Amino acid sequence: MGIRIVATGGTFDKHYNELTGVLGFSDSHLPDVIKRTRMTVPVALEVLPLLDSLDMQDADRERVLAACAAASEPAIVIVHGTDTMPETARVLGAANLGKTIVFTGAMIPYEIANSDALFNLGVAVGVAQTLPAGVYVAMNGQVFSWNNVQKNKAAGVFQPL
Amino acid sequence: MGIRIVATGGTFDKHYNELTGVLGFSDSHLPDVIKRTRMTVPVALEVLPLLDSLDMQDADRERVLAACAAASEPAIVIVHGTDTMPETARVLGAANLGKTIVFTGAMIPYEIANSDALFNLGVAVGVAQTLPAGVYVAMNGQVFSWNNVQKNKAAGVFQPL
Amino acid sequence: MGIRIVATGGTFDKHYNELTGVLGFSDSHLPDVIKRTRMTVPVALEVLPLLDSLDMQDADRERVLAACAAASEPAIVIVHGTDTMPETARVLGAANLGKTIVFTGAMIPYEIANSDALFNLGVAVGVAQTLPAGVYVAMNGQVFSWNNVQKNKAAGVFQPL
Amino acid sequence: MGIRIVATGGTFDKHYNELTGVLGFSDSHLPDVIKRTRMTVPVALEVLPLLDSLDMQDADRERVLAACAAASEPAIVIVHGTDTMPETARVLGAANLGKTIVFTGAMIPYEIANSDALFNLGVAVGVAQTLPAGVYVAMNGQVFSWNNVQKNKAAGVFQPL
Repeated sequence: MGIRIVATGGTFDKHYNELTGVLGFSDSHLPDVIKRTRMTVPVALEVLPLLDSLDMQDADRERVLAACAAASEPAIVIVHGTDTMPETARVLGAANLGKTIVFTGAMIPYEIANSDALFNLGVAVGVAQTLPAGVYVAMNGQVFSWNNVQKNKAAGVFQPL
Repeated sequence: MGIRIVATGGTFDKHYNELTGVLGFSDSHLPDVIKRTRMTVPVALEVLPLLDSLDMQDADRERVLAACAAASEPAIVIVHGTDTMPETARVLGAANLGKTIVFTGAMIPYEIANSDALFNLGVAVGVAQTLPAGVYVAMNGQVFSWNNVQKNKAAGVFQPL
Repeated sequence: MGIRIVATGGTFDKHYNELTGVLGFSDSHLPDVIKRTRMTVPVALEVLPLLDSLDMQDADRERVLAACAAASEPAIVIVHGTDTMPETARVLGAANLGKTIVFTGAMIPYEIANSDALFNLGVAVGVAQTLPAGVYVAMNGQVFSWNNVQKNKAAGVFQPL
Repeated sequence: MGIRIVATGGTFDKHYNELTGVLGFSDSHLPDVIKRTRMTVPVALEVLPLLDSLDMQDADRERVLAACAAASEPAIVIVHGTDTMPETARVLGAANLGKTIVFTGAMIPYEIANSDALFNLGVAVGVAQTLPAGVYVAMNGQVFSWNNVQKNKAAGVFQPL
């Protein structure tokens, strides 16, 4: 029972470095975020290397797959960059792990005003517990199947193929 | 298709009045919240009188029931105070409306630091689209059936009976 | 050299208790606030009992006076509730301590959206280092002398007598 | 009487563009910030082209100088990027305009968590009304004269030469 949250970076988890003026990665925000959610279901957080999803290579996607394969929880939420989220979802979808795996992320970093991060995480946590085994993307308040989702970069929203 | 969000007040929607120093109600935050979520599924917002749920009377619960009965959407999220959320859920559950109705709320008002409001709304929006018809409470990252949920006021969390 | 900040409570420092739903006092926010300001001038924080200023008695004002009298710093900022800020300022003004003492506070608690707390603290910290010895109130971006200030409660602003 | 606030960009006013993922400039935050401060002294806001101060050229500094020269207010706050703030301050200082001109900015953008922007603006607004005519930099809770200030980029703080 319980949920595993796998942090892989992405806009959700970016951090503003005040010395360099660069939005990059430092410690994951997810420990704080999880406390804030007041979840009572057991939650295991696994923080993988935090990457901009444009920088993700095959080996990085394999690492995500390995984390999901090794997880004892039947419900997994993957916090991931939006730009290549569908691509990593396809790797997971093809692997057919028999678990409910939900990708989510954010258009605005958690630490920036007006962020969608907390809402998106809520959608993902909810549907990870209610959908049948499979691989999904939860963005914009909607759930997409891994094999029928794309990011419309001009509009900044996810939609079916 | 689409989702109806019914605002009834509760901690989620409380507002600090700087002239009186009282946390009460003013305009609902939900129009701003909905924009922030970047939902692409059609969302209809219905703002009922905003009440502390401790002040809700039978007539107020009947008004919530009437709003749900009249809704054309198959998925409804009700933003409600936590103290009597299970009581209103029982009124809706007994009515057997054939829609997926999910109650949610917050332990910390949306406008106060560290609020769970946005996360809870995400969970509710997600499961309202994935659960079969019925009446549910989504709090603490979990989904409860209307006939098996209570608020543990000492701990500030929802749990089964 | 350096600044002393004396915390006495007031709206600035109120905290929402999620179990009771009451805006009251817990630990002061000022240690976090001071870190956030990135002040490089030495700052000594002294946290007195945190009170709503409507609940302040003569003994409470004497405690504030004693703290200021004992301070080794030439510049003191007092974070105080707005409702009786001018009254405590008169106690300090009459004492003629030969230091620059600036009262400030907030109309919206630090932890609530749209708070003026951080701005007000900035004004107070700035003028505490630039004004001659005396007792002042810094609110609404203005500086008032202790003997010519009142809160206009209907408008929620400070103004001369 | 009154204060003029001149916006020139800098970290203070940066905005996250969710389509490009870039922290750049859009509308200035200062109209919202000024409302939030609840200032009752008359405030005139003048928004110049918003620039990263590393991109400022001589002509940009001349524009800031011209705005200050033309201002009818005796107190001027300039919101400016931190990297070349001392350089623009030297242009203003040399011009000897007979007004109290205070530069400020932020290490963290106003819209990002834990920002020092609102505090710094408060310090600047306060001392702009209490210091004699001259050109100053207000950062880290301190006031520096235009001819004795530098940014320590490694530490991210301002200090005397």
